[in-house]
Amino acid sequence: MNSKQPIYPVEPWSVTETAFNMADNYRNETIFSLSNGYIGTRGTFEEGYEFNTDQGLEGNFINGFYESEPIRYGEWNFGFPEHSQTLLNLPNLKTTKVYLDGEWFDMRTGSIEDYRRTLNLREGIVTRSLTWTSPYGKHIRIETTRFVSFVMKNIMVQRIRIIPLDFKGEIGLLSMLDANVENHTRVTNPLIDYGPFGRTLNADKITAINDMLFYAGRTTNSGLKMACGCVHLLTSERTDKCYETEKFRCSVRYTAAGEVTMDKFIAYTSSLDIPDAEFNGYIRWILHEAKQQGFDVLAQKQRDYMTSFWENADVEIDGDDVIQQGIRFNLFHVMQSAGRDGRTGMGAKGLSGEGYEGHYFWDTEIYVLPVLIHTFPNLAKSLLDYRYSTLDAARARARVLGHAQGALYPWRTINGEECSTCVPLGTAQYHINADVAYAFTQYVKITGDTDYLKAKAAEVLCETARVWADVGSFSEARGGKYCICCVTGPDEYSAFVDNNFYTNLMARESLKSAVSALKWLEENDLNAFDALRRKINLQLSEPVLWQSIAGNMYLPRDEKKGVYLPDDGFFLRKPWDDRQIPPEKRHLLYENYHPLFIWRQRMAKQADTILAMFLHSGYFDCEEMSRNYDFYQEFTLHHSSLSTCVFGIAASAIGRTDEAYRYFNDSARMDMDDHHNNVYAGIHAANMAGTWQAIVFGFAGLRINSDPKSPLADGLELSPKLPGRWNGYRFRIFFKGMPLEVSVQKSGCSVRLLDGESLNVILYGEKRRLEKEEILCANIK
Amino acid sequence: MNSKQPIYPVEPWSVTETAFNMADNYRNETIFSLSNGYIGTRGTFEEGYEFNTDQGLEGNFINGFYESEPIRYGEWNFGFPEHSQTLLNLPNLKTTKVYLDGEWFDMRTGSIEDYRRTLNLREGIVTRSLTWTSPYGKHIRIETTRFVSFVMKNIMVQRIRIIPLDFKGEIGLLSMLDANVENHTRVTNPLIDYGPFGRTLNADKITAINDMLFYAGRTTNSGLKMACGCVHLLTSERTDKCYETEKFRCSVRYTAAGEVTMDKFIAYTSSLDIPDAEFNGYIRWILHEAKQQGFDVLAQKQRDYMTSFWENADVEIDGDDVIQQGIRFNLFHVMQSAGRDGRTGMGAKGLSGEGYEGHYFWDTEIYVLPVLIHTFPNLAKSLLDYRYSTLDAARARARVLGHAQGALYPWRTINGEECSTCVPLGTAQYHINADVAYAFTQYVKITGDTDYLKAKAAEVLCETARVWADVGSFSEARGGKYCICCVTGPDEYSAFVDNNFYTNLMARESLKSAVSALKWLEENDLNAFDALRRKINLQLSEPVLWQSIAGNMYLPRDEKKGVYLPDDGFFLRKPWDDRQIPPEKRHLLYENYHPLFIWRQRMAKQADTILAMFLHSGYFDCEEMSRNYDFYQEFTLHHSSLSTCVFGIAASAIGRTDEAYRYFNDSARMDMDDHHNNVYAGIHAANMAGTWQAIVFGFAGLRINSDPKSPLADGLELSPKLPGRWNGYRFRIFFKGMPLEVSVQKSGCSVRLLDGESLNVILYGEKRRLEKEEILCANIK
Repeated sequence: MNSKQPIYPVEPWSVTETAFNMADNYRNETIFSLSNGYIGTRGTFEEGYEFNTDQGLEGNFINGFYESEPIRYGEWNFGFPEHSQTLLNLPNLKTTKVYLDGEWFDMRTGSIEDYRRTLNLREGIVTRSLTWTSPYGKHIRIETTRFVSFVMKNIMVQRIRIIPLDFKGEIGLLSMLDANVENHTRVTNPLIDYGPFGRTLNADKITAINDMLFYAGRTTNSGLKMACGCVHLLTSERTDKCYETEKFRCSVRYTAAGEVTMDKFIAYTSSLDIPDAEFNGYIRWILHEAKQQGFDVLAQKQRDYMTSFWENADVEIDGDDVIQQGIRFNLFHVMQSAGRDGRTGMGAKGLSGEGYEGHYFWDTEIYVLPVLIHTFPNLAKSLLDYRYSTLDAARARARVLGHAQGALYPWRTINGEECSTCVPLGTAQYHINADVAYAFTQYVKITGDTDYLKAKAAEVLCETARVWADVGSFSEARGGKYCICCVTGPDEYSAFVDNNFYTNLMARESLKSAVSALKWLEENDLNAFDALRRKINLQLSEPVLWQSIAGNMYLPRDEKKGVYLPDDGFFLRKPWDDRQIPPEKRHLLYENYHPLFIWRQRMAKQADTILAMFLHSGYFDCEEMSRNYDFYQEFTLHHSSLSTCVFGIAASAIGRTDEAYRYFNDSARMDMDDHHNNVYAGIHAANMAGTWQAIVFGFAGLRINSDPKSPLADGLELSPKLPGRWNGYRFRIFFKGMPLEVSVQKSGCSVRLLDGESLNVILYGEKRRLEKEEILCANIK
Repeated sequence: MNSKQPIYPVEPWSVTETAFNMADNYRNETIFSLSNGYIGTRGTFEEGYEFNTDQGLEGNFINGFYESEPIRYGEWNFGFPEHSQTLLNLPNLKTTKVYLDGEWFDMRTGSIEDYRRTLNLREGIVTRSLTWTSPYGKHIRIETTRFVSFVMKNIMVQRIRIIPLDFKGEIGLLSMLDANVENHTRVTNPLIDYGPFGRTLNADKITAINDMLFYAGRTTNSGLKMACGCVHLLTSERTDKCYETEKFRCSVRYTAAGEVTMDKFIAYTSSLDIPDAEFNGYIRWILHEAKQQGFDVLAQKQRDYMTSFWENADVEIDGDDVIQQGIRFNLFHVMQSAGRDGRTGMGAKGLSGEGYEGHYFWDTEIYVLPVLIHTFPNLAKSLLDYRYSTLDAARARARVLGHAQGALYPWRTINGEECSTCVPLGTAQYHINADVAYAFTQYVKITGDTDYLKAKAAEVLCETARVWADVGSFSEARGGKYCICCVTGPDEYSAFVDNNFYTNLMARESLKSAVSALKWLEENDLNAFDALRRKINLQLSEPVLWQSIAGNMYLPRDEKKGVYLPDDGFFLRKPWDDRQIPPEKRHLLYENYHPLFIWRQRMAKQADTILAMFLHSGYFDCEEMSRNYDFYQEFTLHHSSLSTCVFGIAASAIGRTDEAYRYFNDSARMDMDDHHNNVYAGIHAANMAGTWQAIVFGFAGLRINSDPKSPLADGLELSPKLPGRWNGYRFRIFFKGMPLEVSVQKSGCSVRLLDGESLNVILYGEKRRLEKEEILCANIK
């Protein structure tokens, strides 16, 4: 766990860089990265510095747009993915070099005053302003503004304003499209031997004409095509413009004098959205649209969108500005990173960098979706739609793994096919299947969206259940209980274990969800039930088997200690003694030790059993949770960014609010204060969402109250606690479409139904029906 | 288990091919391969056909001479080998094309009569003879002879004799050195992505002069250098000769008339033996030596060597010619394949082909060495010397695996460094360490060579023991017993298991051996004891710990069934149902199923627990062995060539002689009848040795009788059985340098001490001291 001094000034609604410092550049590119779930762009500067690979990385991405390459293995085994998928770094259109009568504007030369770069979290806009004195003494003020539009998915907007302070000469603005781009992962990470090396996007067309730059290209291997372009609008009187086109680059150069403002509208699209024959027309049209609306209108729409987002999603903290900033920063990044079109997911790094090749993992389902389901259900649904859209790929993957039926979701993917090269920490992590099912279940439970249950969720639940029913067996050696062998749980410091608690419990609940979904369909919509049966050729014996497995799932437990064990072999491993590990190697075990050494140690990288117990906390009382929490606290190293938020929730649940706060604090400021020293590679999206969970599920104790036999929840449970340092906190959530406000103050807590009919709420164990606009109050317990 | 009709005529002392058939060529290249443990050459024809990669493979090897290449992994992990090692296919000198006045001799054209190719097992010589009618009607007799000299390690000898039957014209003999050679593994096995592609040997010198061809070259990556050459002696009157040298080839062409005999002496050497500056002189000298001695003398020495070998090693079977042939074929290949120079081992395929890249595995220690220790102790010692010579590499490997002390032998290697790209079926197979220790222990026990114990064995035992003392821990969860997690046992259809019975038992005995070796040194040679302590910085607490671990080693056991389990997770896996596997895929599970699917099934590829129980049979009585045998018989698929010989031994031990015979039969004829359809890639050396074990340890019940606290044996135990089909069998073994003859007939069995002082023998449980030339007799029980 980390606790560092804040890197950025503590401000409630923004993150500000107050001085340009080369050493911080790479990290800040991530901090100031922007996205709308479709386009993602790193926080690089308009003047387009060429940094070394350890100083920065220009990055522009389209969610879901990837390049693939054949993967080479020392020895290939059946079922090993043959092609990689890498979120492709695309042509950059942000660059606008400023030229002052013989001198290029460059922050590394001359001198800077009044430098500020601010990510305005309330508005979703990044601004920068500074006064620059050139080496030859020219004095100008520069202001830039950038946002990726939440209302026009293809559009990014940039404004650059130059105010000469004592300078009368010519001002040149060189706006460039640079298609000579490449991914850096394999350059910077020599351990990875897949993914593109060098430029793999090939230009079909590159033009500069009519204030516009345009590019269309195609990948070398994945067969995807993309186009991008930009159009400019200069509010100063133009004196001149000229175009230039090279092999991988084109540009337009404007020459002006006096104060000048250039608005630049940038657009990206790909063949995943529209036929490539229409690229030229589409980009022209969408840029025209954006220009017509103009900077101010689009900026206002951006603010409106953000206002609406914060109205539902904001968590207000009274009395802790550092945390307040951390939470909003985290929520902003989570929200902006999520795919919105139903065929893209959310990468572990969002669209903020090349880390993890832009792959989607289980993080989205277990960490991000619960937040979005409660605050932005439509966005949650889009992410689930993505998983549904890859169900056929998951079916194919299940066959590869030897399952005659069902679907197995991939550990790492963009296009729905498995692209993890790693069996122990990839393919063996079967729990992904239960995680996906969990997210579908939670969505339906909390939104009450039974149409979605019929249309998609039930099918996913049944198909994933089939794999659970095939992967294990009832073992006499465990009293006839159902055992699952040779999997890896969330904890990645152990691998290929038997009866991983997380996996088995999640599988059990997944099977139950499938059964209750089927039952609900049968009782409520026989047509839908029959349609599903026919579609997936479901035998009536299957749910019977699932129920029997769920009723007999083996969960490893140490009866003497009264705790659940992470897996069968846990107490056979070597007691962990980190004195054997030099301090500089402790957080990088896989970089410094053979996997077998790590897997033989009795410790855990991250929350695993505790996570499962939280996700299904209805089965475990406070005493049991306490015992397990104490037990696992001792040997969990929290080397994963996914760990502390979960321990924070568990600590809250057992009333250890101070401990909860310490964990929570690590989670809330993890990226802003760069706890893991790797923010340069991208945000830790899952932890960012985990922060929200640590407040809402942790401090406020929100749980869904439901009959386990029904796929729908019948109410909410809350048991708010107030961390000692805070005066209070307040947040809103949606439940079955009804907005609800929870306010926790020293004086007491209140739950208010803002809209909707009525709702069951259990506050500190007391059940009440809450009517619209009614407020339920209680003292803090 | 297989039982096929014999492919070759049943002959007691030879293997004969009676017709040239293209479809059998690839297999026969292995069957007729020759070696002396230094040079290995495949049974290709003198006339040098160029076959497709599925029809044949020219192969000439020097034991230990390898090329390496960087290995690429999808994702590299700490400790993964970075460079491959591949036994390099070297320039070929066997080719002598025969030219008859305008027509090349080619068995694929014209017609052949009286074709015979014979591997004479008694002599270690391959001969071929045939009468050929050319397409134009020329009629000649051709006879070739080939052997790889057991008395001159660098020398291979070939004679080719041409007898014109009705042809008076010119006879050309084109003798070639072809250095344009390459390994084929990566061409024929696309799953392997390491090892050399294409020609990687670069010529330093290539000359043809003075009846001699010479080549010197160096590898591209491994930095090794080699040289080879040949000299010719024509017994017919020469009419002419001419030389030719190209980039990768040189040749000499002789033109003669009438009957002609060409003797060709071929030599190989490498920089592993002599400095490359001396190559030219050395090859000249050694070829001169060979030529001086001449074909007849060298052939006679070959026969003498073989006579002496068979005197000690032959197993005579009375009443089963098929088996008789199989045993001798197997013993011949085992003997000829073993490295003799103390810095080379014995590959899984000997030197007979490119299979397994020429790597040395545990097979040598567990399958081959027990045979050689009893029949050819010096050869056994050479193989142990090889392991000792790589002890430093094993120490380095232990550090990589996180062990602060000790040595860990590599799973696959040539030069002593690990080169297996596979963790589950490679690095995780820690048992290799105990296997090596076992072989050292057996050697000292059986030969009584205490000098070797002092010089090398004790050091190996202590260094390997240190890894066993570090890899596991005493676990409260198993009553304080010592547990070892996350290893793979010999059975390769399971992986990463906890408490593999084989591993734990072998580790236990390895620790005991180390303790007793130290104790013996302390009591018998304090100087040697102190020298070893100082050399490896041994603390006196270490053997105390080892003893404690050995005394508390956990062995997984099902008490109800009264059987040992292969590992902790065995009964949690899915019951195996091979009806789910289409018949054509059953023997190729890894080629058709994902490893995770295989590892989750409750079955085994090969002997694992049963092997361990046999290797330490003193701990298990007949009843226990019976229960385990029955238990394991049910789910062992015998997909490994290492399996049936071991089950044969176990069946014998429990008196199921008929079953033993069925297993034994599979083992004895495995390569001769190509049971696994892969002899083309090389012999199955371990199984070949296993055949001997199945007779001597199996039918004859030979066991070493010894005080477990002493590193030396004090006698032999025998309890011979006679398979129903046999009239009798007879074999010799060495014990403490004393030759002993065991004869088993229907009328009774006898044990005779041929030489030496006296010896304790327990025959059918009755202990006797046998004096020199005394015969101990008993009825068969």
